[in-house]
Amino acid sequence: MNALLEGELRVLPIGGLGEIGMNCMLMETKSAAIIIDCGLLFSELEHFGVEFLIPNFEVLDRVKDKLKAIILTHGHEDHIGALTFAIQYGINAPIYASPFTSLMVRERLKERGFLDRVDLCTFQLGDTIELPDFKIKTVSVNHSIVDACALIIETPAGRVIHTGDFKVDPSPLFGDVFAWNEFQKAGDLGVNLLLSDSTNVERHEHSLPESMIAQRFDEIFERSTGMILVTMFSSNVGRMGTILEKAHKLGKKVALAGRSVEQNLKLAIERGCVSVPSGLIIPMSEASKVQRNKLLVISSGCQGEPRAALNRIAHEEHPHLELGPDDTVLFSSKFIPGNEVAISKLVDELFRRGANVLYEAMHEIHTSGHATRPELKKVIETVRPKHFIPIHGEYRMLVLHAELAVETGVPGDCVHVVENGMSMKLSPDSLRYEEQIDDLRILVDGREGMEVSRAMLKERRKLAETGAVFVLVARERDQGRILTKPSVVLRGVIAESFEPWISEQAVKAAQNVVRQYHHDLKLGVYNRDLSEDLRLEVRRVFDRNYGKKPVVVPLIVDV
Amino acid sequence: MNALLEGELRVLPIGGLGEIGMNCMLMETKSAAIIIDCGLLFSELEHFGVEFLIPNFEVLDRVKDKLKAIILTHGHEDHIGALTFAIQYGINAPIYASPFTSLMVRERLKERGFLDRVDLCTFQLGDTIELPDFKIKTVSVNHSIVDACALIIETPAGRVIHTGDFKVDPSPLFGDVFAWNEFQKAGDLGVNLLLSDSTNVERHEHSLPESMIAQRFDEIFERSTGMILVTMFSSNVGRMGTILEKAHKLGKKVALAGRSVEQNLKLAIERGCVSVPSGLIIPMSEASKVQRNKLLVISSGCQGEPRAALNRIAHEEHPHLELGPDDTVLFSSKFIPGNEVAISKLVDELFRRGANVLYEAMHEIHTSGHATRPELKKVIETVRPKHFIPIHGEYRMLVLHAELAVETGVPGDCVHVVENGMSMKLSPDSLRYEEQIDDLRILVDGREGMEVSRAMLKERRKLAETGAVFVLVARERDQGRILTKPSVVLRGVIAESFEPWISEQAVKAAQNVVRQYHHDLKLGVYNRDLSEDLRLEVRRVFDRNYGKKPVVVPLIVDV
Repeated sequence: MNALLEGELRVLPIGGLGEIGMNCMLMETKSAAIIIDCGLLFSELEHFGVEFLIPNFEVLDRVKDKLKAIILTHGHEDHIGALTFAIQYGINAPIYASPFTSLMVRERLKERGFLDRVDLCTFQLGDTIELPDFKIKTVSVNHSIVDACALIIETPAGRVIHTGDFKVDPSPLFGDVFAWNEFQKAGDLGVNLLLSDSTNVERHEHSLPESMIAQRFDEIFERSTGMILVTMFSSNVGRMGTILEKAHKLGKKVALAGRSVEQNLKLAIERGCVSVPSGLIIPMSEASKVQRNKLLVISSGCQGEPRAALNRIAHEEHPHLELGPDDTVLFSSKFIPGNEVAISKLVDELFRRGANVLYEAMHEIHTSGHATRPELKKVIETVRPKHFIPIHGEYRMLVLHAELAVETGVPGDCVHVVENGMSMKLSPDSLRYEEQIDDLRILVDGREGMEVSRAMLKERRKLAETGAVFVLVARERDQGRILTKPSVVLRGVIAESFEPWISEQAVKAAQNVVRQYHHDLKLGVYNRDLSEDLRLEVRRVFDRNYGKKPVVVPLIVDV
Repeated sequence: MNALLEGELRVLPIGGLGEIGMNCMLMETKSAAIIIDCGLLFSELEHFGVEFLIPNFEVLDRVKDKLKAIILTHGHEDHIGALTFAIQYGINAPIYASPFTSLMVRERLKERGFLDRVDLCTFQLGDTIELPDFKIKTVSVNHSIVDACALIIETPAGRVIHTGDFKVDPSPLFGDVFAWNEFQKAGDLGVNLLLSDSTNVERHEHSLPESMIAQRFDEIFERSTGMILVTMFSSNVGRMGTILEKAHKLGKKVALAGRSVEQNLKLAIERGCVSVPSGLIIPMSEASKVQRNKLLVISSGCQGEPRAALNRIAHEEHPHLELGPDDTVLFSSKFIPGNEVAISKLVDELFRRGANVLYEAMHEIHTSGHATRPELKKVIETVRPKHFIPIHGEYRMLVLHAELAVETGVPGDCVHVVENGMSMKLSPDSLRYEEQIDDLRILVDGREGMEVSRAMLKERRKLAETGAVFVLVARERDQGRILTKPSVVLRGVIAESFEPWISEQAVKAAQNVVRQYHHDLKLGVYNRDLSEDLRLEVRRVFDRNYGKKPVVVPLIVDV
């Protein structure tokens, strides 16, 4: 990649453009660089041992010596989830985060024992971070987690705004309102590039304020006669605080189900955005002692995660909590695409317990953390950027957001729909594409952070679809004669009842191959690939009889 | 299961209650039995070689001698898809189907060469099927496929109504309106049991009439400047007919992409519900010759099926069709839960081609084939059944539909939420539960109809998640000594770069086991399970180093 001149800014989206997740962006000048967010993407490949994807940090090797900061816009996994992997890789720069974000990061660093290896700097919303070539004003936005911010960045190439994830909530339950004045001010001074959240561009009506959800809770809590269980994203501590307040007002006790709920509430209290009257929260083990209509449970597992507390409760496998017909379960959460099947199975199971289950399709008890068209439009109108790049969205969302920008008055040739890896050079008077960088992601088996390679994934897919057949022979080391009747071992190939018959066919086929091979040996011919012949002939047996081609692994032991 | 008396009717839902798919119900009297629908359920396990699920027909062995008919309410896969498997199993009874349904069944039977083995009887909507103990009036309902019907059944236990899948369309584009008069008449005479479609009970507003969608097409077709591509469920031939009409009016040529689209249109023409002016339809190979704004394509693949024409078009892999910025793509279809991720990837890819893509989230160009609450309510009010059983829905939908029935005046103790396998005995004055029958489904690898057993599935899941390690040794047949250094083969276990190192560790572990084993041999001790020891020790190597326990298969060749 060619060198940058004074007054030029390289913008390289590493993740988050063309997908929802793994948000990570590099901004680079001649002598300095910053990273904005360092998130992960949850995988649809968990069947194949892939828990999530992270950026391939090799792309940052080039800038590691001038890297001044990793700046986090808020504490969601898709913005901070890859941090520890970045540190493990050797990315070494101070991390800047807002108060609650900082606490979440601290916990992660602690877990991995990285706390002392990293300089974690906490900023207050409204603070300005002064770095070589980058002067970054952090301004308040609303989101489904507290202390979310947008970044107004003075660069040698002019002013750049990165909205982070945002919505506009006229009456947030915690924290400041959306910093319109700052956006206005920046707009008046002139903004060269606006990067804005595209997640909800498909929605036309203004996002519901959090206070509205609080009202719904009031109505439902009043009505409910039995226990109330609310499941939600545990990072939404603002909403959690509201629920605790209401529970307290109604003289209820609250039990927490799920480590992430306990953990995040602890941090929220430390942050000071939630206050918990003593005696309000009781250990789950005490829940059964509380009068049923005085019990409220906050639980994780709203996405149907199999190991989560809620799933165990639904399947009557929870040691301390049973659901009954008088109980009410609220899904105060989105059904995330890809999770619908798991979630609706969970909902069905809760219905089987007889509980009164309130969820997306029937009740509006969740509001998204992302701005919809009217809000997105107003941001563009307020900022009046020279250049516009939609970020944080699947490709169609980026396109729709770009179209909205054009409708809103940004000239078409200054609106840029780009995806991960498109390196761009911004100067005071132009934005130019440099090159498309590929292979920017790594598949990770979460447990130990092991990489899952494409080749592994391919083999696992094949094994999963057809199972595997092993063909086994022992061969005389020097003479090359086969010493044993071939044997086969099947794994996940065929129903037990068919196994003996097909195995016999496979052995016969293998024997024919061996016969051919011996025949050639006698003639002194050695050009036959025994192992490949075994593979093909045995596979043919399954293909012929069942129209399936399992993975066939020939194993030749030289004795 | 105990015998039935005169005047008793056994109702056994085999599939479709507690799920959407695999609809199949047995109705049985002392001396006769019928099956209503014989569908399949598409699988979420295709990664593991499971394409769909079908009923376990063993449950019908008991009644095969008195089975008088298989009656089909309409031609969707979840109602007819398991027929050929039933025949293969040996279920032998005449099949009754409405005209279009009958044509679809005929094609399937032809494909499998079963045509001569089966008595396929076509009835006209409104006909009555007279069978021992069952007098079945077939009445017209609206649905997303033509010739759908409900069944009003006179039985020894009284009148039973099975709605099949239905909606109420005041102005259907083909076929009769919903047969309110027949429902009314039956209601007046008295209905002992109503079985009604629950799919859309979560929706509050009346379902959109098909004519409304037709209007939307008009508006969109007028506006569009380039090619128009409509993707839809190919079985919705009514809608297909409308599209062809409009294309003809606008002087467009129509090309068909996808075998199912061609197939179903052929049947629709034979049925007489679609008429195609000569020259309107052109072969796909000619499409490129047609002026762009005179070309309309109807395509399968609206669920993001990887092999479907639309997916190939989206990825620029179609031999005859390319998409451009002036072109419009309409998803006139539902995003079926479980398919969202695949569909939205497809939509994104179409956006990447620059096409103007209209889909669910942004445009109302599809209407469901299932009745919503107001329609469901009106059916119950009209029929005023003694007993009510919600069918065709996931568990929560059955519950919500049951609650709606109670609101609508059916006494609570006459509303029965039951799932697959609950055998019930209906008599003129009671409905009693008999027993819950389990294992009513079989996992099928579609291609050859092979069964996938639970054990296979379990092995495939494990192989998929961790890959497999094979540990190989040759053993002297009589002395039992190990003749070779153990070797290991890895498949999908670990990234290539780590493989040599971990393999070496695994071999060392295996060698230790062999050493132990030899040591025991010397002492004449034979109680050690060599193969199990190899498995455990090698697995431990991976667990220790990567926190993963792959499938380890020890393979001992006796020479």
